Amino acid sequence: MYNNIHEECGVFGIYKPHNADVAKTVYYGLNSLQHRGEEAAGIAVNKDRIIKCVKDLGLVSDVFDDGVFDTLGDGNMAIGHVRYSTSGNSTKVNAQPMLIKHIKGQMALAHNGNLTNSLELREELEQKGCIFHTTSDTEVISYIITGERLNSPSIEEAVTKAMYKIKGAYSLILMSPAKLIAARDPMGFKPLCMGEMSDGSIVFSSESCAFATIGAKFVRDILPGEIVVIENGNIRTINEHIGRVSHSSMCLFEYIYFSRPDSILDGISAHDFRENAGRSLSIEHPVDADIVIGVPDSGLEAARGFSKEAGIPYEIGLIKNKYVGRSFIAPDQGMRVDKVHMKLSSVSSVIKGKRVVLIDDSIVRGTTSKQIVKMVRDAGAKEIHMRISSPPFLNPCYYGTDIDSKDNLIACKYSLDEIRDYIGADSLGYLSVDAALSILHKLSEKDYLEHDGMKVDRGYCTACFDGKYPTDIPKETDKLRFEI
Amino acid sequence: MYNNIHEECGVFGIYKPHNADVAKTVYYGLNSLQHRGEEAAGIAVNKDRIIKCVKDLGLVSDVFDDGVFDTLGDGNMAIGHVRYSTSGNSTKVNAQPMLIKHIKGQMALAHNGNLTNSLELREELEQKGCIFHTTSDTEVISYIITGERLNSPSIEEAVTKAMYKIKGAYSLILMSPAKLIAARDPMGFKPLCMGEMSDGSIVFSSESCAFATIGAKFVRDILPGEIVVIENGNIRTINEHIGRVSHSSMCLFEYIYFSRPDSILDGISAHDFRENAGRSLSIEHPVDADIVIGVPDSGLEAARGFSKEAGIPYEIGLIKNKYVGRSFIAPDQGMRVDKVHMKLSSVSSVIKGKRVVLIDDSIVRGTTSKQIVKMVRDAGAKEIHMRISSPPFLNPCYYGTDIDSKDNLIACKYSLDEIRDYIGADSLGYLSVDAALSILHKLSEKDYLEHDGMKVDRGYCTACFDGKYPTDIPKETDKLRFEI
Amino acid sequence: MYNNIHEECGVFGIYKPHNADVAKTVYYGLNSLQHRGEEAAGIAVNKDRIIKCVKDLGLVSDVFDDGVFDTLGDGNMAIGHVRYSTSGNSTKVNAQPMLIKHIKGQMALAHNGNLTNSLELREELEQKGCIFHTTSDTEVISYIITGERLNSPSIEEAVTKAMYKIKGAYSLILMSPAKLIAARDPMGFKPLCMGEMSDGSIVFSSESCAFATIGAKFVRDILPGEIVVIENGNIRTINEHIGRVSHSSMCLFEYIYFSRPDSILDGISAHDFRENAGRSLSIEHPVDADIVIGVPDSGLEAARGFSKEAGIPYEIGLIKNKYVGRSFIAPDQGMRVDKVHMKLSSVSSVIKGKRVVLIDDSIVRGTTSKQIVKMVRDAGAKEIHMRISSPPFLNPCYYGTDIDSKDNLIACKYSLDEIRDYIGADSLGYLSVDAALSILHKLSEKDYLEHDGMKVDRGYCTACFDGKYPTDIPKETDKLRFEI
Amino acid sequence: MYNNIHEECGVFGIYKPHNADVAKTVYYGLNSLQHRGEEAAGIAVNKDRIIKCVKDLGLVSDVFDDGVFDTLGDGNMAIGHVRYSTSGNSTKVNAQPMLIKHIKGQMALAHNGNLTNSLELREELEQKGCIFHTTSDTEVISYIITGERLNSPSIEEAVTKAMYKIKGAYSLILMSPAKLIAARDPMGFKPLCMGEMSDGSIVFSSESCAFATIGAKFVRDILPGEIVVIENGNIRTINEHIGRVSHSSMCLFEYIYFSRPDSILDGISAHDFRENAGRSLSIEHPVDADIVIGVPDSGLEAARGFSKEAGIPYEIGLIKNKYVGRSFIAPDQGMRVDKVHMKLSSVSSVIKGKRVVLIDDSIVRGTTSKQIVKMVRDAGAKEIHMRISSPPFLNPCYYGTDIDSKDNLIACKYSLDEIRDYIGADSLGYLSVDAALSILHKLSEKDYLEHDGMKVDRGYCTACFDGKYPTDIPKETDKLRFEI
Repeated sequence: MYNNIHEECGVFGIYKPHNADVAKTVYYGLNSLQHRGEEAAGIAVNKDRIIKCVKDLGLVSDVFDDGVFDTLGDGNMAIGHVRYSTSGNSTKVNAQPMLIKHIKGQMALAHNGNLTNSLELREELEQKGCIFHTTSDTEVISYIITGERLNSPSIEEAVTKAMYKIKGAYSLILMSPAKLIAARDPMGFKPLCMGEMSDGSIVFSSESCAFATIGAKFVRDILPGEIVVIENGNIRTINEHIGRVSHSSMCLFEYIYFSRPDSILDGISAHDFRENAGRSLSIEHPVDADIVIGVPDSGLEAARGFSKEAGIPYEIGLIKNKYVGRSFIAPDQGMRVDKVHMKLSSVSSVIKGKRVVLIDDSIVRGTTSKQIVKMVRDAGAKEIHMRISSPPFLNPCYYGTDIDSKDNLIACKYSLDEIRDYIGADSLGYLSVDAALSILHKLSEKDYLEHDGMKVDRGYCTACFDGKYPTDIPKETDKLRFEI
Repeated sequence: MYNNIHEECGVFGIYKPHNADVAKTVYYGLNSLQHRGEEAAGIAVNKDRIIKCVKDLGLVSDVFDDGVFDTLGDGNMAIGHVRYSTSGNSTKVNAQPMLIKHIKGQMALAHNGNLTNSLELREELEQKGCIFHTTSDTEVISYIITGERLNSPSIEEAVTKAMYKIKGAYSLILMSPAKLIAARDPMGFKPLCMGEMSDGSIVFSSESCAFATIGAKFVRDILPGEIVVIENGNIRTINEHIGRVSHSSMCLFEYIYFSRPDSILDGISAHDFRENAGRSLSIEHPVDADIVIGVPDSGLEAARGFSKEAGIPYEIGLIKNKYVGRSFIAPDQGMRVDKVHMKLSSVSSVIKGKRVVLIDDSIVRGTTSKQIVKMVRDAGAKEIHMRISSPPFLNPCYYGTDIDSKDNLIACKYSLDEIRDYIGADSLGYLSVDAALSILHKLSEKDYLEHDGMKVDRGYCTACFDGKYPTDIPKETDKLRFEI
Repeated sequence: MYNNIHEECGVFGIYKPHNADVAKTVYYGLNSLQHRGEEAAGIAVNKDRIIKCVKDLGLVSDVFDDGVFDTLGDGNMAIGHVRYSTSGNSTKVNAQPMLIKHIKGQMALAHNGNLTNSLELREELEQKGCIFHTTSDTEVISYIITGERLNSPSIEEAVTKAMYKIKGAYSLILMSPAKLIAARDPMGFKPLCMGEMSDGSIVFSSESCAFATIGAKFVRDILPGEIVVIENGNIRTINEHIGRVSHSSMCLFEYIYFSRPDSILDGISAHDFRENAGRSLSIEHPVDADIVIGVPDSGLEAARGFSKEAGIPYEIGLIKNKYVGRSFIAPDQGMRVDKVHMKLSSVSSVIKGKRVVLIDDSIVRGTTSKQIVKMVRDAGAKEIHMRISSPPFLNPCYYGTDIDSKDNLIACKYSLDEIRDYIGADSLGYLSVDAALSILHKLSEKDYLEHDGMKVDRGYCTACFDGKYPTDIPKETDKLRFEI
Repeated sequence: MYNNIHEECGVFGIYKPHNADVAKTVYYGLNSLQHRGEEAAGIAVNKDRIIKCVKDLGLVSDVFDDGVFDTLGDGNMAIGHVRYSTSGNSTKVNAQPMLIKHIKGQMALAHNGNLTNSLELREELEQKGCIFHTTSDTEVISYIITGERLNSPSIEEAVTKAMYKIKGAYSLILMSPAKLIAARDPMGFKPLCMGEMSDGSIVFSSESCAFATIGAKFVRDILPGEIVVIENGNIRTINEHIGRVSHSSMCLFEYIYFSRPDSILDGISAHDFRENAGRSLSIEHPVDADIVIGVPDSGLEAARGFSKEAGIPYEIGLIKNKYVGRSFIAPDQGMRVDKVHMKLSSVSSVIKGKRVVLIDDSIVRGTTSKQIVKMVRDAGAKEIHMRISSPPFLNPCYYGTDIDSKDNLIACKYSLDEIRDYIGADSLGYLSVDAALSILHKLSEKDYLEHDGMKVDRGYCTACFDGKYPTDIPKETDKLRFEI
């Protein structure tokens, strides 16, 4: 819970057969993707080839109100974006969608992921006289695509060519004056799927959970490397990049934590993964105990799975305070010990005198876990056996996940026993990478992704756990030094 | 979930041996009581006999920020209040605490409950020349107390006398220049309890859940009719009203829904009540099914209980969207069918093909239940057996709960079968009042409340379910016609 | 300019023959009275005997927006109030109109002025059991009126009786369920006048300047002691208090500074007074100079008068920066010398090499004057002859003007020569009290105020200048110690 | 007054010998330039070669608060910008300074003026693959400069080369990691001047009025075509573009209306120009009258001049309401006739029975003038002789002034007599272009601008009055069709 790991974004797009309040649909879609990025939100609407865009820092519900919807107006296409949470006014320029004008007209772009050759590309572009308003990869991608557009007959061909140049993770939704295009990098690091509404509207979303909200039907996942083009209501796939790499590298942490449990990613339900992670934890790290408790919200499914597998009763022993929002004033240093108490409470009648299996999805720095263990202990637990439904974090991610620095990752500094002692648990067990991969294998109907004859072998990126990066990694990993 | 029943308030108070940032402590305490009232919040701080007060419409975290805490400053006593959610600017004057000046100095008052003789008292007072700035009972109570104070040697004696005049439900916290006083009506309709902090501070709260947040230890419930006076750090009880009625009449709905599950009210854990309500439902309305699902958040404990009693697996089949806050724009009429979809999602891999027992805490108008049943049906449920962990609402409450009008209460208009058909379930069962009372009996160690030799027989108010009002009810039940 | 003397309020009221958006009319009226009080604003609207009220800290344009007007709705009567500028959240309760409920229904009250027996009345009331929510005299007046109402056949008779009890300065507008009442204290300290709109609406206002804004015609000043009652569209005067004192005591400073120059108060134009004050200054303190410059905005008329009388050219030598509003960040201590530079600039081509007569309306602490003199000196003035169009401040006001404390008033501490040296002028002259009174005499057509046969001899309050208080002054002059 | 003509911007910059709160200095500077643009404001600060920028819609005092200054932090250089007033959220991206990153690092740019070859340049750039985030010329200029920078040894040489490519009006302030550069187009359409602070800081500003506010001394105007480079505290001029055209073309309307009266532009005081414009009006359009009244604020100086020349007394007959700000709710259609009454009031004791010369700076659509004439007539004026201190508007401006469309300009549609009748005046006279030019000639010491041996012959742009455009005008004059 409450860890310091941030997804870098969620994207959403809609193509409607006619002009309507598409911005509202994107608004509801983005709200369902809000967990993927709490920092900034934006929507761009296309009406009669003219695109308007509104974006700002804040939650979707902060940025958009009736006045803003009036400004955006109707349209037949729209795309939206939510961005992860950092702080600072100066990052406003990095909000998306990015709306630019180039030789062929306007283009709006929403992007989830991180390029691994971003700095090289920026340098090349700058040497040609390009200027950058932001520090985001999205601007790099915009230049690459519009650059290719100069010598391409169509925007989709430009995107196709650009995908040879940009490396790393990207799930893109792009809107030109006349087309809506969705594209996923050949390794499929980040999810992207397609749905359909009863009026024939086509929608794209980072996660399938957004479809239920807007009354859309899930159609399918976009394949790694696939480019889907919607023009004049027709859907067309460009398959040039599909299968260009040996197998996909879907981010394991999407299943463990990022995605909403009601989402299904590349055919695998996040809820099912988490429940099975709990089951596997019970097998890998069995324990004799009275009750199983999950840390809400993200530890609940795994707790349920552990309970079922181990035959130990699942109980609701921790309650989440739903009123701790962004404007809440955190306790002062003097009250620091109580920080977790703002957000969680224990139900002592459940916990008192019990040997407790406590399930959380991850440990980052260890301070939060320490406070939760203390809270459960204070509620009268006789024993506390902490089980983590992910492997320990040991490595940085270059594909769009903002993991804490190595200096802060407790698993980089301490042994398992030391961590257990630090957090104050009686025992501690992490899910193994192998177990996680086994679950994914078990939950997949087939060991490949396919659509209409196109196939991509399944694979997963586990780099933050085991250091096995599926691509070259950036030479220089520092953030851009310039604040724009 | 999301029903139209509102608690009318939460109160909190602190007495500290020395001046300190007591306002912050109240802030955290109120945040834990926020579920009792989302409309308005206020804090009054007493420093060196001078009381300052800040209150406004909004959540606790909306009303208070660093600037407001600067305005309030330090003090050795403070009281706070949260108020239920309605709308409209004009209700700002009804925010509490109420801070007034009378012949003996200042007095701040925070009140949870509703008087049943409020209109009669207002008329009497107006005939003496009293003027009213608000429509709240708190102003009536203020007049009665300050009126008695004219002929009383102390504020606590004035409170004692006043309690013969005011009838109905009240859990009060009152701050005079030198004293902090907590009082609970002789029937004990509303909860009120006392805690202690490690530095000797005494705290009062509507619910015990607020104590964990601020690091306080639960001491005991205030007895029905008890007046607790804190002066110069000494705690004293005035027992004149204790046992004045035959038994207490604690609100049943506090256990069913209002209180936070981690609260313990008059010795009974809300969580335990709810889990047992689920167990009883399973006994009263058994069903052959595959899984039990609770509607989050308030149906989860009962679902857990049903599951255990019935031996049917508990599953997490509905997910709550935590980002649907106050500024969220609700879908238009055209999208109305999707309203519940903003707030809830189903996990189809859990539900698909299953016979589902669906547990919620109440049905008010039926429209929300209908939408939830549809959502579960759409997720592939083969059968849906709705079980409600409370009896049907049939009567208005005069003690501080804002139940919908009879015209809107589905149980007043339709038979059980009609309701089942309306919401679209395959079967429907409510908890009986008897079962609820049995649970409370079972969970009570003794059939009386006691402290230090004082005893009050336990009883419960079930009037909204069975019409058995434990007091005379107001002759005229209309709201005051005047907007102030 | 920018002195530390504050008027305590402006009041406005309207009675319309039919329901309409009277709140908007009051809004525009209050905006024209904004200079009388920048701290808080409020409007109460009466529709079908039900009164709603919205008030808050801030300028009229801050407090009211479209949403607030929706809340207030239509009505056939409304009253409004602006309040002077201090700071602090805790004063929100003192905003007006005050809306209360008493035995006969609702009453809304807007008040300009200060009672001199307020503390005595509060004590008496408290001894009867009255409670106070605010520290404002308006609540005292409310109690006195509603107290009298118990034994009076009508609200206007209650007001009439109350006026025997309340002493000091008050221009009141009161709204009952069916009547709009305007009343002015028998000494007529504060202005109050009546206008008429083309649709037959009757309006009351602190100053006549508000009438032009809303398209109303000035009808007449309310006489000192007069009570005007509007009921069912009929206007009626109660003359019981008219002429009860030997002569009126209109605040001299209303003419000098408070009122807008386009207002006509008790038959005398503020603009004309100020121009004549300039003329008199030229006669009382003649000087050989090249140009006359007024400090904008309030010194311009007097400068014009001085110029005409002395035959020295009037020039625009100081420009006011219109963008220095409430949210403007003042310069830090390190830049303090430049504080006046934020608000004023000099036109050096006008000033350079000239002997300048510099006219301002008052000197309070002297620091601002010192900075202005320096600014004019820096612009190249050869000589600077400061002329002040009011006498020196030497005494507190008990009638509603918030003059700085004696400790801060430069005229209480220093001789004329010392003040001249302190501010850095080459010469300094104040208007004498006699000259001011002569001007008023000259500008009055008659030495009495009259209407419809009722007469009140004219007089003026000059107490802040010469200490001649026209009433007893409060025994205890401290502000109420309690913050509410 | 209140016309529909907007200046397009104000720029400000500072170079300090050491790090300090330069953002605050820019804040005060921009506040003095606020009249040049009320829509948006921004500041970019350079500390140790890293530039941060904050900008947003709103007044300077709206955009910047203590939190923003914390974000910006200290620095040794900063530039700022204010932008003219339109509406719409979508223009946020056009706020300045523009902060970009290019091959040589960061660059911040603030620009006042309009290019005449902007569309051609955009097309050329887009054909090279450039993308545009905004519709502002500033982005075009950024590309041109950074493009030249690729083949230039320094940023100042890049600016020098760029100035051959960009055509039209521009007063630029540019900040690179190490240098502050100010540049003015060779025709000098827009003002730009330099000042110095006592600590050696160099400041640039659109108008000299900003210097007094921050305690800076005016040094000199930047010459048309001049580039001033500050690096390591040294000031250097690049004179390559100075004198490249036959004479300057300073915007006449800067003197008539845009600039603050206390500003001195290219050696001529705006105040002096306006007073002389009044004198000339009196000569060109003499009239027998009793008083001269100026429409505040911008008509006052000309009224003063008319009065002196004609020997007719100047009076203060119109008062401006200083409380009509941006959040003020304008009267509804039903009350429309009163719109000017919100902002202006008449002093009837001054006007009544008089023959009035009424001076305003311009007539655009005529509706405002019509209302003002009516107001003066209603105040009792016997005759009203309207005199306008500018020639009639007949042509669009391509250099940065947002004049209303020809369809709305009353002078394009009606004869002088028709306009006089429409506004309801007894006579009407405009200043002639020749008279305006004569005044400028008279007020110039020399008929050339010079500094350190460099000379530029003086000239003025009068195109909006007489259609004599000093440059080629854009072929396509439509605004960019794309909203970004």
